[in-house]
Amino acid sequence: MEVKGKHYRTIWVDNDSPHIVKIIDQTLLPFEFSIKQISTCAEMVLAIKDMHVRGAGLIGAAGAYGMYLAAGEATQDAEFFMDHIRGSAKRLKQSRPTAINLEWAVNRVLRVIERAEGFSGKVKAAFQEAQKIADEDADSGRKIGVSGLPLIENASRQKKGQTVNILTHCNAGWLALVDYGTALSPVYAAHKKGVNVHVWVDETRPRNQGAFLTAWELSQAGVPHTIITDNEGGLLMQKNSVDMVIVGSDRTTHTGDVANKIGTYLKALAAADNNIPFYVAVYSSSFDWHISDGLKDIPIEQRCDEEVRFITGLDESGKKTRVAIVPAESPVSNYSFDVTPAKFVTALITDRGICNADKESIASLFPDKINKQ
Amino acid sequence: MEVKGKHYRTIWVDNDSPHIVKIIDQTLLPFEFSIKQISTCAEMVLAIKDMHVRGAGLIGAAGAYGMYLAAGEATQDAEFFMDHIRGSAKRLKQSRPTAINLEWAVNRVLRVIERAEGFSGKVKAAFQEAQKIADEDADSGRKIGVSGLPLIENASRQKKGQTVNILTHCNAGWLALVDYGTALSPVYAAHKKGVNVHVWVDETRPRNQGAFLTAWELSQAGVPHTIITDNEGGLLMQKNSVDMVIVGSDRTTHTGDVANKIGTYLKALAAADNNIPFYVAVYSSSFDWHISDGLKDIPIEQRCDEEVRFITGLDESGKKTRVAIVPAESPVSNYSFDVTPAKFVTALITDRGICNADKESIASLFPDKINKQ
Repeated sequence: MEVKGKHYRTIWVDNDSPHIVKIIDQTLLPFEFSIKQISTCAEMVLAIKDMHVRGAGLIGAAGAYGMYLAAGEATQDAEFFMDHIRGSAKRLKQSRPTAINLEWAVNRVLRVIERAEGFSGKVKAAFQEAQKIADEDADSGRKIGVSGLPLIENASRQKKGQTVNILTHCNAGWLALVDYGTALSPVYAAHKKGVNVHVWVDETRPRNQGAFLTAWELSQAGVPHTIITDNEGGLLMQKNSVDMVIVGSDRTTHTGDVANKIGTYLKALAAADNNIPFYVAVYSSSFDWHISDGLKDIPIEQRCDEEVRFITGLDESGKKTRVAIVPAESPVSNYSFDVTPAKFVTALITDRGICNADKESIASLFPDKINKQ
Repeated sequence: MEVKGKHYRTIWVDNDSPHIVKIIDQTLLPFEFSIKQISTCAEMVLAIKDMHVRGAGLIGAAGAYGMYLAAGEATQDAEFFMDHIRGSAKRLKQSRPTAINLEWAVNRVLRVIERAEGFSGKVKAAFQEAQKIADEDADSGRKIGVSGLPLIENASRQKKGQTVNILTHCNAGWLALVDYGTALSPVYAAHKKGVNVHVWVDETRPRNQGAFLTAWELSQAGVPHTIITDNEGGLLMQKNSVDMVIVGSDRTTHTGDVANKIGTYLKALAAADNNIPFYVAVYSSSFDWHISDGLKDIPIEQRCDEEVRFITGLDESGKKTRVAIVPAESPVSNYSFDVTPAKFVTALITDRGICNADKESIASLFPDKINKQ
């Protein structure tokens, strides 16, 4: 995607400095657009842990590039090359233990390193595999856009070209992947094609990824949008101001239950009550082929109180400042996800096309995945 | 209610300084508990406008006391006494034009002043009427507690004495009235009686009345509670961690549709989906006897962008600081209320007892109101 007219991915390696991995530092957005240089695997572990990179797809790619950096470092101590590699893999995977993509991508590069011949061959193979993972990730995002575009075009036709209003929750845009995004990919595709779209952006407490990341992305791309509190979506649906909801997914059961950022379920209920289509843009790799009952079986991550207790913004002088917004004596609860049962999901928008949120329909798009598990 | 062991109302006049109206300054909570002195009607207008006092019941009482202050001022210019009174009434009513209680209370004191004999008689009558309005307001809150207590006691019995978990949205506690509150009044009654209760407090963006006011109230009263983002209530209901929802109401149609703080409707939907009772604590005076279709006919107030764009908290040095949390280039929308259709309301808890959220049931509790309109 483009930032101030220049194309960026969320993570990349420049030809003229092949030993440095570059990332957009997402902890500074939207207040500052800054590129961070990562030159060791240890730095990559910290970048993932402290969420300088975040989003399922991007974390996978970051883990893969982290393995490439580890391979480069390992050549300095050839005797313990594979020990260093395996230790690095472990530290990368533990940096965010619940993200499935991270483990999958790190293991994929690890296997490639194990098989390649010679130290420089191993480093080269690691680099190529990391690049491949990043390319595949971006391409999956692009394909979700292709799959979802007709839904927005149809809505536009039904409204005779009037603006199609799309509500989204959290950030499932290009910042969450290597490029394109999931939920926002069809929106970008429609905007590029000249379809009139407008996005209602839930601010998405407690980390405000909607207000901080999604709104910033949409601004950069010139897509009309409006930030709303998480409380407002229901009213907007009651007022016929929402034509469809599109959200991403952190984990989708092969039966169609969707775990996504906390609060998604409330929007699904409101969409159902107002007969508004509720679409989930699902990345192939975020399906869970082992679980049938999302409500019972998807583990819901609890994160630290601080995310709710504090928020960072710009003070009057434009200085980034963290303020406490919860009385210190009151306890706080902070679950990160909820589960939207399949019955509230109108359809899944995947990189292989659109399907219903049920076992049979999902299986028909992903027969290879079903058989492999 | 008690603050640090001492009883307070939200507004009062001390015997030893009868020309000063005192309020708890709600713009400073929860960071600072401070009593503000109001000695002119013009100051009261500002206190209402800038939300040093807020909440339907409290604003009514503040308007009434404002009229008392106006009467005292008017005696200094006896020739234009009633001109000053009528001008003051107008300014008070315009300070928050949508709050029905304010207009009603100001008009009530205005009529009393018109009828009383002599200037000092008029001032005395205004004071007595303002006190009466405040007393009635507090008493209505107390009665809602009496009406709602059995619902919590029943839930406690069904759970064999285990903690009853009650979710609330926004602030409908004693800070919103002169005393007791609406939604929280049954909670206080249960806690006082030794019933184990715990309250999930929605932070209630954008003004955070849950985190700033409700949590503070509950802390003062020693009621166990936990602050959550507005996004979390649905998950907690899915996890069987909520036994009932109790919210207040800014306007309730005589057919049972409920306008309340934005986001209330989303919690009603989640309660319905999880078979959890959804109660609305309704103040007699917040019924609208003229409107039948809440969704179509209740006007939804839009407030300024700033409420969403900025938030005030304590910085690292403990200094109150306002920070911008929305990118300046992104538009913002800020509706203050939504409408929960009657079908999602399990029952109304009123100062006259409990009734269903339908025309017949409401009419049977308020036959005098129906006939009067």
